[in-house]
Amino acid sequence: MNSTDTIVALATGQGISAIAVIRLSGTYAIAITNKVFKGKDLEKEATHTLHFGTIRDGERIIDEVLVSIFKAPHSFTSENSTEISCHGSPVIVREIIKVLLKNGARLAEPGEFTKRAFLNGRMDLVQAEAVGDLIHAETDTARQVALNQMRGGYSKGLASLREELIHFASLVELELDFGEEDVEFAKRDDLRNLVIRIQQFIEPLISSFAQGNVIKNGIPTVIAGKPNSGKSTLLNALLNEERAIVSDIPGTTRDFIEDEMVLGGLSFRFIDTAGLRETEDVVESLGIERTHERMKKASLILYLYDLANTTLEEIEAQEKTFANLSSTILRVGNKLDKAKPEMVETLRKKDFIFISASSHQNIQALKDAIVAKVMLQEVKQGDAIVSSLRHYQSLVQTHEALDRVLQGLSSEVTGDLIAMDIRQALHYLGELSGAITTDDLLDNIFSKFCIGK
Amino acid sequence: MNSTDTIVALATGQGISAIAVIRLSGTYAIAITNKVFKGKDLEKEATHTLHFGTIRDGERIIDEVLVSIFKAPHSFTSENSTEISCHGSPVIVREIIKVLLKNGARLAEPGEFTKRAFLNGRMDLVQAEAVGDLIHAETDTARQVALNQMRGGYSKGLASLREELIHFASLVELELDFGEEDVEFAKRDDLRNLVIRIQQFIEPLISSFAQGNVIKNGIPTVIAGKPNSGKSTLLNALLNEERAIVSDIPGTTRDFIEDEMVLGGLSFRFIDTAGLRETEDVVESLGIERTHERMKKASLILYLYDLANTTLEEIEAQEKTFANLSSTILRVGNKLDKAKPEMVETLRKKDFIFISASSHQNIQALKDAIVAKVMLQEVKQGDAIVSSLRHYQSLVQTHEALDRVLQGLSSEVTGDLIAMDIRQALHYLGELSGAITTDDLLDNIFSKFCIGK
Repeated sequence: MNSTDTIVALATGQGISAIAVIRLSGTYAIAITNKVFKGKDLEKEATHTLHFGTIRDGERIIDEVLVSIFKAPHSFTSENSTEISCHGSPVIVREIIKVLLKNGARLAEPGEFTKRAFLNGRMDLVQAEAVGDLIHAETDTARQVALNQMRGGYSKGLASLREELIHFASLVELELDFGEEDVEFAKRDDLRNLVIRIQQFIEPLISSFAQGNVIKNGIPTVIAGKPNSGKSTLLNALLNEERAIVSDIPGTTRDFIEDEMVLGGLSFRFIDTAGLRETEDVVESLGIERTHERMKKASLILYLYDLANTTLEEIEAQEKTFANLSSTILRVGNKLDKAKPEMVETLRKKDFIFISASSHQNIQALKDAIVAKVMLQEVKQGDAIVSSLRHYQSLVQTHEALDRVLQGLSSEVTGDLIAMDIRQALHYLGELSGAITTDDLLDNIFSKFCIGK
Repeated sequence: MNSTDTIVALATGQGISAIAVIRLSGTYAIAITNKVFKGKDLEKEATHTLHFGTIRDGERIIDEVLVSIFKAPHSFTSENSTEISCHGSPVIVREIIKVLLKNGARLAEPGEFTKRAFLNGRMDLVQAEAVGDLIHAETDTARQVALNQMRGGYSKGLASLREELIHFASLVELELDFGEEDVEFAKRDDLRNLVIRIQQFIEPLISSFAQGNVIKNGIPTVIAGKPNSGKSTLLNALLNEERAIVSDIPGTTRDFIEDEMVLGGLSFRFIDTAGLRETEDVVESLGIERTHERMKKASLILYLYDLANTTLEEIEAQEKTFANLSSTILRVGNKLDKAKPEMVETLRKKDFIFISASSHQNIQALKDAIVAKVMLQEVKQGDAIVSSLRHYQSLVQTHEALDRVLQGLSSEVTGDLIAMDIRQALHYLGELSGAITTDDLLDNIFSKFCIGK
């Protein structure tokens, strides 16, 4: 990595739009921009200022633009940077990038701006990954989790604990240099306390992963029930209403795919199922088998009963079919408008939600119940939630290595064994924060980013 | 229109990207942004400065952003404006727009920013329309034409000529107030000279429309020839090569659709045709009839001959079939590798281009010949070219009204008749520049713009 290399990329969405922003970073970013800009002398202007002028290829004017200047280290990458805001035409973007390439910039790789921010110490790896998560957040909760992580989240706490542990590691290793002499630079009680403190810091993060994972990837949800219990009608009722609510804000349409819905800031991924019934038909029973499989894997099952055409006995029989499932189950009585009142009364005691999917009756109550059922605490500003499998694994490995340190301390093993386990814990913590990295790891992380970020 | 109304819109492309820019304009744009921004007090900061901070809904942080401030009249709209550069997630864009709406902004209509720039006198209507054309430019030449027009192009010249004409109109109308008295405030020779000067200014603009129209909308081009003369192979050879050339710059792919190609900065729209041959088959002859129709309408015909399987006599016979067409015709001898040398020698005198489409031989020479054939002069910076039918019609109508003024002056008709024709010319000129507008006209123009522009 050489920041004298100036990178350039389109940072905004492709296609026709009001404006487009082209971003440069590197020691010569301002100088290169200045070479193609006619207006003020950008190199003489202050950081965080905006300048109107034209971008030119020789005498040929490409566009009228606004250029933002960011002087190192006061930029996203900590390098000299500019942002050229031009008219949002793909032709103009192409021509401006071409003239910048001609004047010494090169095309940025995916995530290269954020990678530079990381390599220049502007953020650790956990924060850098959060930048990518933030851009790809599909719900407001996922946005909040990523933002917390990007703004430091657990990074800062872990970094200072890691520093303390490094200190102990050196002390323990210093003891080893004294060989046979019975010195103890690292007080064992203090070390034990530190290890326990780190584990206490890590444990809630490890447990938060279950929540973080569904926030990031959505909650697998199955709508199940007998044929004609109203599964599709319900799905449409849920989906359509949500769509109508969000469609007055531009730019939101693409968040929604056919079977995905955001409720209470959480993404629910609906999985289609075949209606459940007893059958002699081999093919149909295979389909039903698959439904049972899907119900097992789902985090949440909305189990639908047709109140108009089902007896209490039948309901009890159906209840047994999913008695052993570990998924959260929400029992929904559909066709409330045609149900017998005494039946509703009996079922009410069993924690049923009653709706009429076709007439959209009680859909909001159902939504509230769905959100309540998944029982995720609301993510608040500053909440540290781990949503990345990589982070989760590093934290689990750190915790295990620290367990071995504690065991070593209890069984009073020799310093060299303790030192090895501490080093192991430090290694996993270092991988997490990016203090220890490999090119492969970085490539793997940043290649998933957008170009221009 | 009330600029105390603060409008807000996403100004960059929709979807996931590195950054997105949300734009506000209106008297309270900075104040409203400041209400949701935590960082410096934006209202106290200078115009054209950038500020890092967070956008918040109450205590909830939505994103870390950079805010650009533009103070009236130093902005695109001449109003107070801000641009919020946030992470390019649709969720973040939606949340930020929501909190801005909550704090007093309203969603902008398509083109409303540019409409305000026009209504605030920042640009005339011709320039405002050029902003839209610039964003939608599909070729570099179309970009140049739109940019020239946006930067003033013929607007300034026309505006000052219109001022002069208004002056004469008042003088002539003043004469009318004196009724029977034989006064002449407007010197007839000076008026005649002015009218001629305006006509001389307008005439090249009117003639430029043919060129402007093909620059904006593409050149309708037909590849014709007998069956198996190699039409599809040629089209693929032309299209594929161009695609390969541009594909190393991101963001260009969408410029190209199956049958469109950019050569020498001009867009060529290829029209498929059925192979031309004598036939008794009724259906096939209908297809061939259509090909002839398309050849008539095309600006350019690439007429392909299979040199390997055609005699000179057959070529002469085919030549007759398009002898009466007004389209520009480029004769292309295909399968050069299998042609008899003496035949090539004879045809060379007839201004043929020789290629082998299948082996991509001489394709570049053919491209050069295509560009040369359409004989458009290169558009230079500052060239005034009319590409809008609306402008063209206004200019023609102005010219006609001025003709009537000249006729009136020659035949020494009364002042009131001359005044009427001058008013008519002024009306058309005013419609062109937007000095005279109707809500319908403005709606029609700006509704075609992007939201956010």
